[in-house]
Amino acid sequence: MTDVVVPALYRQIYMRFRASIAEGLLKPGDRVPSIRALASELNLARGTIESAYQLLISEGYLLSRGAAGTIVSPAIKAVPMSSKSQPVSLPQYSLVHSGEPPQPFQMGLPALDAFPRKLWNRIASYELRHSFWDGAVYPDARGHSSLRRAVAGYLGVSRGISCTPEQIFIVAGYRAALDLISRTLLQPGDSCWVEDPGYFAAHDFLREAGATLVPVPVDSDGMVVEAGVEHVPDARFAVVTPTHQSPLCVALSMPRRQALLEWANHQQSWIIEDDYDSEYRYHGRPLPALKSLDTQDRVLYCGTFSKVLLPSLRLAYLVVPEKLVLRFTELADKMQSHCPQLWQVTTAKFIEQGHFGRHLKKMRNLYAHRRQLLVDALSAKLEHRLSVDHQVGGMHLLARLAKSEDDRGICIRAKRAGLRVEALSKWYLKERSEHGLLLGFTNVVDKEQASELVERLAQIIGSQPERRNDTVLYDACR
Amino acid sequence: MTDVVVPALYRQIYMRFRASIAEGLLKPGDRVPSIRALASELNLARGTIESAYQLLISEGYLLSRGAAGTIVSPAIKAVPMSSKSQPVSLPQYSLVHSGEPPQPFQMGLPALDAFPRKLWNRIASYELRHSFWDGAVYPDARGHSSLRRAVAGYLGVSRGISCTPEQIFIVAGYRAALDLISRTLLQPGDSCWVEDPGYFAAHDFLREAGATLVPVPVDSDGMVVEAGVEHVPDARFAVVTPTHQSPLCVALSMPRRQALLEWANHQQSWIIEDDYDSEYRYHGRPLPALKSLDTQDRVLYCGTFSKVLLPSLRLAYLVVPEKLVLRFTELADKMQSHCPQLWQVTTAKFIEQGHFGRHLKKMRNLYAHRRQLLVDALSAKLEHRLSVDHQVGGMHLLARLAKSEDDRGICIRAKRAGLRVEALSKWYLKERSEHGLLLGFTNVVDKEQASELVERLAQIIGSQPERRNDTVLYDACR
Repeated sequence: MTDVVVPALYRQIYMRFRASIAEGLLKPGDRVPSIRALASELNLARGTIESAYQLLISEGYLLSRGAAGTIVSPAIKAVPMSSKSQPVSLPQYSLVHSGEPPQPFQMGLPALDAFPRKLWNRIASYELRHSFWDGAVYPDARGHSSLRRAVAGYLGVSRGISCTPEQIFIVAGYRAALDLISRTLLQPGDSCWVEDPGYFAAHDFLREAGATLVPVPVDSDGMVVEAGVEHVPDARFAVVTPTHQSPLCVALSMPRRQALLEWANHQQSWIIEDDYDSEYRYHGRPLPALKSLDTQDRVLYCGTFSKVLLPSLRLAYLVVPEKLVLRFTELADKMQSHCPQLWQVTTAKFIEQGHFGRHLKKMRNLYAHRRQLLVDALSAKLEHRLSVDHQVGGMHLLARLAKSEDDRGICIRAKRAGLRVEALSKWYLKERSEHGLLLGFTNVVDKEQASELVERLAQIIGSQPERRNDTVLYDACR
Repeated sequence: MTDVVVPALYRQIYMRFRASIAEGLLKPGDRVPSIRALASELNLARGTIESAYQLLISEGYLLSRGAAGTIVSPAIKAVPMSSKSQPVSLPQYSLVHSGEPPQPFQMGLPALDAFPRKLWNRIASYELRHSFWDGAVYPDARGHSSLRRAVAGYLGVSRGISCTPEQIFIVAGYRAALDLISRTLLQPGDSCWVEDPGYFAAHDFLREAGATLVPVPVDSDGMVVEAGVEHVPDARFAVVTPTHQSPLCVALSMPRRQALLEWANHQQSWIIEDDYDSEYRYHGRPLPALKSLDTQDRVLYCGTFSKVLLPSLRLAYLVVPEKLVLRFTELADKMQSHCPQLWQVTTAKFIEQGHFGRHLKKMRNLYAHRRQLLVDALSAKLEHRLSVDHQVGGMHLLARLAKSEDDRGICIRAKRAGLRVEALSKWYLKERSEHGLLLGFTNVVDKEQASELVERLAQIIGSQPERRNDTVLYDACR
């Protein structure tokens, strides 16, 4: 066995301080703990700390100011003491979730300028004072009862989904909902229909959880259910975005909804309904949620507050059939992935007090307006290159490109220029992808900004914008 | 295909309200949305809502009060409309994480009465107003930079762990840390040394993640490393609680620490150091953290704020070797399991402003006192049945029972009587378990309560307390 030489205690303390100063964790002028306090914290004799401090002072790391306490010497420069303390040059990784402000055209974000911040903070401050201890130890693993009740009420009235609060699980996002579902119901190798094109992060997650993905094409009526039935009739799961297909924003037609339920009932398979932004529909009547038509309890329904409030709340919900409540409860209890209580009770209050309904209504109008701003700007500058799908809802535009255009290349160049445009072709699982740009419009605040952003996009696409009189931009509804 | 008959829209609305009333989601006297507001929310013609409301009013479900709005009829009783709306009698499951207040003797909880609630709320309120938008969209997946910096500083000074903020990942608890580790480093079938007895929730999680558990016995010097080396020398992981072994509270001796590091260096295996309550040591000097001795970067270090602040904050941290930072970053970014920003910035401020150090010091004194209260009460009532281990730290007592005593039976009876005692034998993976009771003492507030709780426990154990003069209760140090 190699001998590990443990230095004297005072020397260990001395080295810790040197390392902390070298790494910049303690900065010149920072106060260090008193000898008494540190001795108590570390359960060491005061003499030990005193020896360490004396050495640090004699070497100029610390400066004693008598009764005013001891500080890191203001004159010191950070001096690495060993290779371990050297500033590390880490390999770079470009985070999707970096905490940075969003970039123009970024998809899936609510309008940040329109979030009712003051109202929200007022409710949150109240709840911080009044319900902080509500589940302050280990909160209910299924979610706070007030929020589960509020969500059940909202789904009943707004989405026609009849469910009890017991069927609702509050989760930290769609991915967390898929995690609960897959840990409860998925066996490795289970076939799973997914939309093609479709939400690739969900595909990645399901694949990692052991599912065998079956890409099912999407046309103007949504997922082509008959193609799924033809190719892999015995799939155990179908994952769909029926309200606004992600990313094409088409709605799953009523006959397809019926066919999908029919198939699930017959096969005893599960439908995962991802109803991520059903609240945003700008014209036409919404079709009933699959879950509201689910007479045989085959649908697991997922909704989220990321799109209608803020993604950083990490609040979403899952509605499970009654017969699965027990199994999901056991698993949720084991997982301990609680959502923040404060945001749960604040959101519940926000719904109960009627603010949620008003906020949705306001956002619906705002987004219809902002959507039009971007459509107009694209039409003025880029209609010879792009054709915008006529979608009934959603939070992004789909601007199609000719097959000959390289949408991924455009997006890489756009990203370098600070525009977060996504390439449609990236959302396909199979080769025969179509090309286009996905453009979030919710944070386009006015006409000037829309023009400026589209101008930058046009330069990236590398074309001289020329208006052709005979093209109707807005008519590319498939 | 079965025909799904979709009722007229107004009838769908009518049924939603009936269902919501029947299920108690809308209660007598509750206000319902105005026709205009609901029509707008559902994107339906006002006439449709009006027809539904008229039917509901004519059947007595709703009551129109003219300009004062429409309400659920105060006279109504919840009347189920179909089997789907029947109050569901769900199978019962006893949640560990139920949101209920903690029970006496519950392990692993901080002293709830001593949490600096006002101070905490003051900082949180400030941060709510001032840094709510800091990462309000998609927060940094690795954790908020202020908290990572504060944790690096704390670990440097208090645990002798020299690390940069880049090596720190803020996670939602120890389980989340194990999830990151296993998704990054664990291959299905990898052997993993675990302490026997040991923290069974971690064992369950690792087993589910695909690890093959290798139980390694624990003696008074902690995990018997030589037994692990002898039986499964090529394990890929060793999971240890070196400061206070969970649940025996013994410390891993220095020679064992060296042997463990030696083994990991030689095998290129990973050590997962779970340092869950190192802050609570009541006498003697703490040994250096394994991570602080880890010259070859084989240790993944896990700490948590659950024991030193509150479990409901869901804040823990993981320190990974520099060479693994990139892989862990990529995975954390994919997982999107962010911890609440508000609690992150509040905790960072709490540390930076010196409150954390003061709180720890205060708790250390308080827990030493409360521990003694419980030891004294047990000594007075139960020393002929129980012998309390002399532990140097931790948040629970281990009161040993004779092998002939059924510790699990006692715990089941105690639970029925409202006492959350745990059975030592439950923590063993192998047969040759020892028997005893694990008793959390952090929430035992005074002598009277200690006596009262021990009295209840004594009745459950079913003995007449008889003081034997010749037994020294406190001397059962193994």
